[in-house]
Amino acid sequence: MRRFSRRAHRAGLAPGTLKVTDTPPAHVPGIRIVDFDSAGLEERAGASLDDCLAGPREGTTRWIDVDGVHDAQLVTALGQHFGLHPLLLEDVVTVAQRSKVEAYGDATYLVVRMLQLDAAGAEVSSEQLSIVITGNTLISFQERPGDVFDGVRERLRAGRPRIRTGGPPYLAYALLDAVVDHYFVLLERIGDHIEVLEEALVSDPTPGTLSGIHALKRELIYLRKSVWPLREAISTMLREESLPFAGDLHVYLRDLYDHTVHVIETIESYRDLNAGMLDTYLSSASNRMNEIMKTLTIIATLFIPLTFLTSVYGMNFDHMPELHMQWGYPALWGVIVVASAWMLRLFRRRGWL
Amino acid sequence: MRRFSRRAHRAGLAPGTLKVTDTPPAHVPGIRIVDFDSAGLEERAGASLDDCLAGPREGTTRWIDVDGVHDAQLVTALGQHFGLHPLLLEDVVTVAQRSKVEAYGDATYLVVRMLQLDAAGAEVSSEQLSIVITGNTLISFQERPGDVFDGVRERLRAGRPRIRTGGPPYLAYALLDAVVDHYFVLLERIGDHIEVLEEALVSDPTPGTLSGIHALKRELIYLRKSVWPLREAISTMLREESLPFAGDLHVYLRDLYDHTVHVIETIESYRDLNAGMLDTYLSSASNRMNEIMKTLTIIATLFIPLTFLTSVYGMNFDHMPELHMQWGYPALWGVIVVASAWMLRLFRRRGWL
Amino acid sequence: MRRFSRRAHRAGLAPGTLKVTDTPPAHVPGIRIVDFDSAGLEERAGASLDDCLAGPREGTTRWIDVDGVHDAQLVTALGQHFGLHPLLLEDVVTVAQRSKVEAYGDATYLVVRMLQLDAAGAEVSSEQLSIVITGNTLISFQERPGDVFDGVRERLRAGRPRIRTGGPPYLAYALLDAVVDHYFVLLERIGDHIEVLEEALVSDPTPGTLSGIHALKRELIYLRKSVWPLREAISTMLREESLPFAGDLHVYLRDLYDHTVHVIETIESYRDLNAGMLDTYLSSASNRMNEIMKTLTIIATLFIPLTFLTSVYGMNFDHMPELHMQWGYPALWGVIVVASAWMLRLFRRRGWL
Amino acid sequence: MRRFSRRAHRAGLAPGTLKVTDTPPAHVPGIRIVDFDSAGLEERAGASLDDCLAGPREGTTRWIDVDGVHDAQLVTALGQHFGLHPLLLEDVVTVAQRSKVEAYGDATYLVVRMLQLDAAGAEVSSEQLSIVITGNTLISFQERPGDVFDGVRERLRAGRPRIRTGGPPYLAYALLDAVVDHYFVLLERIGDHIEVLEEALVSDPTPGTLSGIHALKRELIYLRKSVWPLREAISTMLREESLPFAGDLHVYLRDLYDHTVHVIETIESYRDLNAGMLDTYLSSASNRMNEIMKTLTIIATLFIPLTFLTSVYGMNFDHMPELHMQWGYPALWGVIVVASAWMLRLFRRRGWL
Amino acid sequence: MRRFSRRAHRAGLAPGTLKVTDTPPAHVPGIRIVDFDSAGLEERAGASLDDCLAGPREGTTRWIDVDGVHDAQLVTALGQHFGLHPLLLEDVVTVAQRSKVEAYGDATYLVVRMLQLDAAGAEVSSEQLSIVITGNTLISFQERPGDVFDGVRERLRAGRPRIRTGGPPYLAYALLDAVVDHYFVLLERIGDHIEVLEEALVSDPTPGTLSGIHALKRELIYLRKSVWPLREAISTMLREESLPFAGDLHVYLRDLYDHTVHVIETIESYRDLNAGMLDTYLSSASNRMNEIMKTLTIIATLFIPLTFLTSVYGMNFDHMPELHMQWGYPALWGVIVVASAWMLRLFRRRGWL
Repeated sequence: MRRFSRRAHRAGLAPGTLKVTDTPPAHVPGIRIVDFDSAGLEERAGASLDDCLAGPREGTTRWIDVDGVHDAQLVTALGQHFGLHPLLLEDVVTVAQRSKVEAYGDATYLVVRMLQLDAAGAEVSSEQLSIVITGNTLISFQERPGDVFDGVRERLRAGRPRIRTGGPPYLAYALLDAVVDHYFVLLERIGDHIEVLEEALVSDPTPGTLSGIHALKRELIYLRKSVWPLREAISTMLREESLPFAGDLHVYLRDLYDHTVHVIETIESYRDLNAGMLDTYLSSASNRMNEIMKTLTIIATLFIPLTFLTSVYGMNFDHMPELHMQWGYPALWGVIVVASAWMLRLFRRRGWL
Repeated sequence: MRRFSRRAHRAGLAPGTLKVTDTPPAHVPGIRIVDFDSAGLEERAGASLDDCLAGPREGTTRWIDVDGVHDAQLVTALGQHFGLHPLLLEDVVTVAQRSKVEAYGDATYLVVRMLQLDAAGAEVSSEQLSIVITGNTLISFQERPGDVFDGVRERLRAGRPRIRTGGPPYLAYALLDAVVDHYFVLLERIGDHIEVLEEALVSDPTPGTLSGIHALKRELIYLRKSVWPLREAISTMLREESLPFAGDLHVYLRDLYDHTVHVIETIESYRDLNAGMLDTYLSSASNRMNEIMKTLTIIATLFIPLTFLTSVYGMNFDHMPELHMQWGYPALWGVIVVASAWMLRLFRRRGWL
Repeated sequence: MRRFSRRAHRAGLAPGTLKVTDTPPAHVPGIRIVDFDSAGLEERAGASLDDCLAGPREGTTRWIDVDGVHDAQLVTALGQHFGLHPLLLEDVVTVAQRSKVEAYGDATYLVVRMLQLDAAGAEVSSEQLSIVITGNTLISFQERPGDVFDGVRERLRAGRPRIRTGGPPYLAYALLDAVVDHYFVLLERIGDHIEVLEEALVSDPTPGTLSGIHALKRELIYLRKSVWPLREAISTMLREESLPFAGDLHVYLRDLYDHTVHVIETIESYRDLNAGMLDTYLSSASNRMNEIMKTLTIIATLFIPLTFLTSVYGMNFDHMPELHMQWGYPALWGVIVVASAWMLRLFRRRGWL
Repeated sequence: MRRFSRRAHRAGLAPGTLKVTDTPPAHVPGIRIVDFDSAGLEERAGASLDDCLAGPREGTTRWIDVDGVHDAQLVTALGQHFGLHPLLLEDVVTVAQRSKVEAYGDATYLVVRMLQLDAAGAEVSSEQLSIVITGNTLISFQERPGDVFDGVRERLRAGRPRIRTGGPPYLAYALLDAVVDHYFVLLERIGDHIEVLEEALVSDPTPGTLSGIHALKRELIYLRKSVWPLREAISTMLREESLPFAGDLHVYLRDLYDHTVHVIETIESYRDLNAGMLDTYLSSASNRMNEIMKTLTIIATLFIPLTFLTSVYGMNFDHMPELHMQWGYPALWGVIVVASAWMLRLFRRRGWL
Repeated sequence: MRRFSRRAHRAGLAPGTLKVTDTPPAHVPGIRIVDFDSAGLEERAGASLDDCLAGPREGTTRWIDVDGVHDAQLVTALGQHFGLHPLLLEDVVTVAQRSKVEAYGDATYLVVRMLQLDAAGAEVSSEQLSIVITGNTLISFQERPGDVFDGVRERLRAGRPRIRTGGPPYLAYALLDAVVDHYFVLLERIGDHIEVLEEALVSDPTPGTLSGIHALKRELIYLRKSVWPLREAISTMLREESLPFAGDLHVYLRDLYDHTVHVIETIESYRDLNAGMLDTYLSSASNRMNEIMKTLTIIATLFIPLTFLTSVYGMNFDHMPELHMQWGYPALWGVIVVASAWMLRLFRRRGWL
């Protein structure tokens, strides 16, 4: 997961200049157009720019789904056709925005971070999703193909009444809802990961466990930074009367708001748990160190004095009367045994054994 | 205590689709209907869906108590009969909501986390309680049988005037009050647990004490996450005039609000105490380590130089005049005794003995 | 100091049921009635319930001071006579409330935690003080005899004009002021304690110092929990126009508010200092450990190689030419001295000596 | 620097009673009167109480500067003459208030903590400054002689128009400005101190460095507690229309407000830096410990096995064939050299050398 | 990077006195005047004070760019010509302000911290930028030559319509936008630095890594202190109607506001990452210590008892029957081998090998 954004080389340009960050254009932009009303739906994958500009029938809602914001020419053409503000277009192509909702004249601009797990559930890809609502058209921009909107398309095709007749604002809500629902998928995976780490902490903590904890921490910092501004944005959608999210959409947006707050609170709880795991690791490392030092101290305290004693009788003085006594050697063994027993008792009393 | 929710596999469905999380349906849903007014009370345990749909007499309050939200068919049928919003029903069956209160048209929806200790006081079970107020009916939903409302039922049967005549809003208050009162039961148990841990920390801290501290920490993180949003919800009940909690109910709700704040502040204090216990454990572990190292250092510092001395006179050089002196051996003992005494005095001065 | 409250066994009862927590009723409740106006004052210690019910003369302010809220009958009788709300009475007898002010119909209810040092200044007793203002009567409830109001009684008897003519609201202020002033007494004691601990930390830190720091931490957590809500309560008294604290009483209440904030800020500063003391302890423990390990390392590094050397010449090989040299033994001593000197220089360079 | 206040023995007195804290009255109170208008200025040091009571000419602003609030009689006399509220006078003589501004009837009361470095720049003295504005008179109270107002007096004498014609409110602003400017002097000294400590941390950390860090921490806690409430007070001066700081004074007060916020933010940054220094100290202590233990382990791991080897051949068994071999002794030396070399290589690989 | 400001020696002066902080005036102040309207642009580098005072043609916007605020005479002359408030001028020359926007009569004053990387990208220079808008003139003040405005000048010269016709308010926005864009350049460099440090932490942590972490921490504290107030300032520009930033400029300022919040949130994330890196370092240091101690303990526990055994048979008692046994020596070797094997197994079981 690439963590922090590159916005740098833009510095020095006029606000509103389209300058795409320098990732190589790995693919041709793909456009998918969906026109629908309560009666029917027409879907064109691989549409061209001209398709976009040829407006839909009166009373029809159009969803233009663009993959590949590195194509400045395409974005500019769309912007000119729909009369979008230069700052809006700049935000679309600068793929490191914080989530926000903003009215630029008649157009409403939403930007949000879309996080998705790959099929194997191991890798997270993070991408900026821009949604522009203008008239009866909704344009969604992202860089790479692949999104979390299959369910939304399913419902559109199935002809569910609410989504077919709700116009661009409801569609925008449906897209946001899909994005937030995928946050929960991610949180679930992280929850599983936390349980695995806690298991490992209790049974057999290794340096690998430690790197796992630190990696989790970085992941949570990134997630928090991605999700936190979304709450503010949805709150703006609910509060700002100039935005096109009025009437019965409010019930849906409040629901979405609650889910977002739920995501944030879960992230905060995970951060607390994460901090707790680090404490657990460090304190159990400290316990192990105590264990190791105790072993060393017991052995050294037991044998160093005894070795001193034996080394005394290994000296070669001419006059050492003990050496010549009949019972000297067994007596020394007696001393050794008694001293060892006494020390072991001492260790036991101190709780070292 | 299962800690974090599974909401994941819902992602991709339309908002408002009923999809129950995949715990196996361990039991048939149970329904209990209580109809009451100031004059009398009728109670039917084991009621059927049809009983629910056959409305009560005019002027009567009905409480429908449903255990088993995994039965999507049942919930949908109730929802259609009472004209409930799809999003409301979705929240009922998705058993990992944060506490909130929300108006969906004429219906008022309350969701809260119900925590109860089992009979032995050892296990906590956590469950989502949904309360729907619509007309003169209150429906409470939960997944598993067993709740904290025996006291409320007792008072209903005993014919206490306030609860008999207060209608669904007062009944909802009474249920919430019972839920919050059980938080205090839980807090008391935790308070006892904290005292046991502090006792253990002072008298005989073991690695078990440490795991106890960490387990407590996780428990408090979970509790906090459960209770915190409730405060906001009750505050909304007091503030929002469109909700049916007006008039003299405000006195009761303010009282409930104060209790909730009290629970939250107690949890925060417990978290502080918990953090303090970890500090205590670590600093006493550090003290013990100091103690161990001091012992090792004293022994090693005392005997290693002496052993060097004796090993000198264990050498086999042909010309070692000391070895042949009459008083060599006793003189060496003298040196040993004097050196030991001097070192012991040094240790005592440094405060190591 | 008993730290956290027992509210548990109330769960399951109706809100507003009087159920006293189960401390044994160690004493008969005591009632003291003071009737006063600008002209005179009448005081009856050991009054009976009937004395309370026989109202004072018109234009007179009455202060009923009840010790012993475990007597539910007495509290209920007073409640009925003065028409107090059941929730109010429940709060009076449940002696673990957070501080608050609340209007229940005509009556105003204040609850606050009263902390007092015993005569020796060693023990803190903590008690719930409930104040009810209704008409021209103020009732103060607490569990144990003994309070911090001797100064207030003195001023009443001395006939100070402000307190004699201010009615129940001014009297309530005077009682709160006395309570808050005793917080300062407590803070001063804690301030002294902190200085003693800091002295000990600098001069001679022992494990006892450490327990002192941890005990202080727990005390501050408790204090904070007790005082924090009071600020909110006084702020409500100033803001809420339905409460009887209008007009020139505001000057006094603002002063009280400032004192409460001062108490809170001092507690926060103490908490910071306390955290700093723990850091100091741990870092000086780490310093001592470094000192100990340095000693061990110096001794071991000096003598272990030398002992190896001597043990070489203690071997019994038949062919060891050094042993038979004339100057072997003195030469070895030379090597020992030179090596020791070299190592000592090395230690000095590393700053270990 | 005496850190925390003594307010204790006041408890039990009526609010508004003048009881001075029990520092011995080390000096006679000094009074300095300055009368000025746009035309001229008259200054009397060592004035008497009677001088204060004999009012200035119409249209003249009077500044009464009192050193020595322990003289309750003097303060009471001034209070009676100017009709000041008893609570105001109580705050003047209780020299441990938090900074605030308060209107008591016609009089405005300001209290703030004045911090000054002594001439040598080593000691900080902390004192309570009370400012009372009533009519065309400003009275400033403090306990000890010596203040930070020489610059203000200079500008008064020099006849600067703004200060001569601004009346008591501008004078109060000028005094506060002088106080806040001296906070910057103090912050600069602390900034220098931080740089010295950081230098020491990098080059040669000693236990003295550690005490320096902890002392700095305590100083910052005290500073923070002193300055924080001032921001609130100045904000009140700007907001509260009943206070006499209207019109073009707002520009000056906003400037003062910004400076105060700047002081607070600098203190917070210093606290962060201070916490970082403690971390640095502890981690470099841990590094040194690692260094020490590495040395010990290398020596012990190298020589303990070798000593074992030599001690084997120091045994006196009758039948030890190795002892009688021609090349036994040189062969052993070979083993020793090879084993040492192998171990040194091992240490080098682990990065211990 | 010089971290904290010197404002000290100003104390004692009248508010509004121009006293420049005592850095030596290293250069003559440079003035650059740009006059422009939609039709054309005239640029004069190295202009004199008189050029500034000779006003531009009606309908033309003038940008006076002054490098060198140490020249109090120049600043005063400009101030008098444009009728600027003394406090404004004081803030211009006191180069350690927190960012703010303030209306002084007709003039609007903006102050912000300009951070730029040098060409090599290694050194950050930090400078105070003051912007004064008065009539159709914008004056920008800074101390040293060199700024981040080359892009703005480019666009002015290129005749971009928005900037040519937007007047001083749009120009001020463009300057602020350039400043904030350079924060991103700085953040990018810090992000790279964080990745290098994390790499080093994983592969080969050295004491140098640790100093890098601490240096980063100090840098982030400084950055935070610089940027945080800017958010407040821009929010004031949006909110305060008396300021000249009305109409369609709001869209631009909201965009700028979002960027500033983005900068702040990124700094906070970096701080979290930084704290995590310190934890990682310390826990891996603790791991290494464990490793070292384990080695020592294994060696000592293995060889110290064996050495004791051999030293027993190195004693010179007359009567030691074992010494004379035929198989004594090989038997002892057997004991040694068996004991070693047993201990190694023990170590392996404990996970030490």
